[in-house]
Amino acid sequence: MLRLGVIGTGMISEQFIRASHGVFKVIAVASRREESARQLLNNTGMTDARWVASMEELVTEPLDLIYIASPNSLHAQHALTAIKAGINVIVEKPAFWNPAQWEDVFSAADEHGVLVFEAARNVYEPGFAAVAQAVQEREVTSASFTFAQYSSRWDAVLTGDVPNIFSLDFGGGALVDLGVYTVYAAVAWFGEPTGVTYMPSLAPTGVDAHGTLVLSYPGFDVSIRIAKDFASSLPSEIYCGRERLIFDGVQDIRAVHSVQGEETSRVFEVGTTDPQPLHQLMRYEVEAISSLISSHLAGGLSNGQRASYLRLTELSRVVNKVCTKARHDAGIFFTGESETAEIL
Amino acid sequence: MLRLGVIGTGMISEQFIRASHGVFKVIAVASRREESARQLLNNTGMTDARWVASMEELVTEPLDLIYIASPNSLHAQHALTAIKAGINVIVEKPAFWNPAQWEDVFSAADEHGVLVFEAARNVYEPGFAAVAQAVQEREVTSASFTFAQYSSRWDAVLTGDVPNIFSLDFGGGALVDLGVYTVYAAVAWFGEPTGVTYMPSLAPTGVDAHGTLVLSYPGFDVSIRIAKDFASSLPSEIYCGRERLIFDGVQDIRAVHSVQGEETSRVFEVGTTDPQPLHQLMRYEVEAISSLISSHLAGGLSNGQRASYLRLTELSRVVNKVCTKARHDAGIFFTGESETAEIL
Repeated sequence: MLRLGVIGTGMISEQFIRASHGVFKVIAVASRREESARQLLNNTGMTDARWVASMEELVTEPLDLIYIASPNSLHAQHALTAIKAGINVIVEKPAFWNPAQWEDVFSAADEHGVLVFEAARNVYEPGFAAVAQAVQEREVTSASFTFAQYSSRWDAVLTGDVPNIFSLDFGGGALVDLGVYTVYAAVAWFGEPTGVTYMPSLAPTGVDAHGTLVLSYPGFDVSIRIAKDFASSLPSEIYCGRERLIFDGVQDIRAVHSVQGEETSRVFEVGTTDPQPLHQLMRYEVEAISSLISSHLAGGLSNGQRASYLRLTELSRVVNKVCTKARHDAGIFFTGESETAEIL
Repeated sequence: MLRLGVIGTGMISEQFIRASHGVFKVIAVASRREESARQLLNNTGMTDARWVASMEELVTEPLDLIYIASPNSLHAQHALTAIKAGINVIVEKPAFWNPAQWEDVFSAADEHGVLVFEAARNVYEPGFAAVAQAVQEREVTSASFTFAQYSSRWDAVLTGDVPNIFSLDFGGGALVDLGVYTVYAAVAWFGEPTGVTYMPSLAPTGVDAHGTLVLSYPGFDVSIRIAKDFASSLPSEIYCGRERLIFDGVQDIRAVHSVQGEETSRVFEVGTTDPQPLHQLMRYEVEAISSLISSHLAGGLSNGQRASYLRLTELSRVVNKVCTKARHDAGIFFTGESETAEIL
């Protein structure tokens, strides 16, 4: 088993560790508060693992990879610390604030010969690939995606607080937090857009509470609704002339149906339609990344693996570029980001 | 019964005449081709009515009102001819190309003491009023509307033809043809937007085949998908904090449901959920307009009727303004429209 270090002790770290069962063995967890680390390890049955107080200590452990689920604002710094110590990293989405950060991290990874992954779990799911395949076989007219979840932190915003996920200091907002999944879908399925327009509705904290994102392509477009201050159950639709493909969301896609006039047919269906816990859905991601890191450590990626890794890296780069352009053009700058920086 | 003249012999005229049964009596139909008029009158059982060859002849008939369903490009001219002859008019939507046309027609109507109605039938439906009421009782966060129907004429566009509904000469395109219903809904339910952005996908003919329209309001927004080159069955959603209202489309609204977390409750339901033919749905419009014109002819509107008429007129004005701004800002100008005209 690959030896895993973890930084960040929130819900997503717990799910990631559960998803890693039998694939990654947790060696150490970094957290300012020992209690948080102990609780995470107890919850996941990883009681053999050590607690360390900082990223600097974490990288002195004997690790094959580090999972970074610290606040978004610390991702780049933590990734660079791991990379410089020669340790592969998986960075929770949204991995990096902007193309400048992205380049810093991936250049360092090249230099130090380690792999970097952005944990956008939908990219690894079988339903995601099924949609990609269906799109390849069709001529697309347009698409509509919606990712709108009422955040448990939104009520705090309404009472004047600034939770990390709604903070400019911490790189929050609906687009980077949820929209990133929809942009991953668009870029994976349709390629890099030629135009990006984001019309956000701003929270009192300065980030986007919700918005409409339109990605333009030669001959078609993708219209996306993203929200953290309301919930929607609208399915995704990809329009191909008289036919449309319908499926739920842009992640955990269980079935894809084709509708044309009154006719409905099934394009794709995974084995089960029962609800799957998050850690089970993250399993695809864990297995794909584990396979790449194992080969990398064992001497090198195969040609196919190299192509997979480059595809994932390119996806991450373009998604970061698109989200940053959308955000900056809409006037949303994280703390310390320059409004005049030449990013594209 | 009020005495009705009709210009335009297409499907919508037939439905309007059916909807008018027992309320309006067709006296004459204007059409360049007698055969078209005869067929319309036969289809609707109005065989007593006369055929006339032009609008100029039509207004010499003894009429209380004229229903104008000629091509969009002739609406204003035909309305002015009727108004100057002292005849009330109902103009099929989209009634007028832009605010300049709109002002010409409504000023003339004031001057000549006649009433002008835009036939946006959804405004008159009980489900439409039920949504308005539900919105009044809530604080709105956002809304998503979709009106996307694959046009039977789109295939002709793809083979190089220019059907009226996709023609800049005839004032066509998805926004003015279908989007107008969604803009009526937004303006009726939420008022005049403070910002309007339209991102169209252009047809080879120069009009919009589909697009995304975002209407901004203080504190919320409305995101609208409109299409004539693809079909969608996405319902409408109005988001109010943790609650959302869900209903089908922005017309023929039979039921409105409220969803909050796992809980669903019914806000409104009309008597029947059976499909209703178009002429039955147009009946609400016919009855409301008939009542106003009857009172007007009988000596004057009551205060309540006056308020209704002014509300309808104001709705039509704002919808026209919003659609024109959306269209012009997106670079879509109908033939003869000035790109430099000061319209707002």
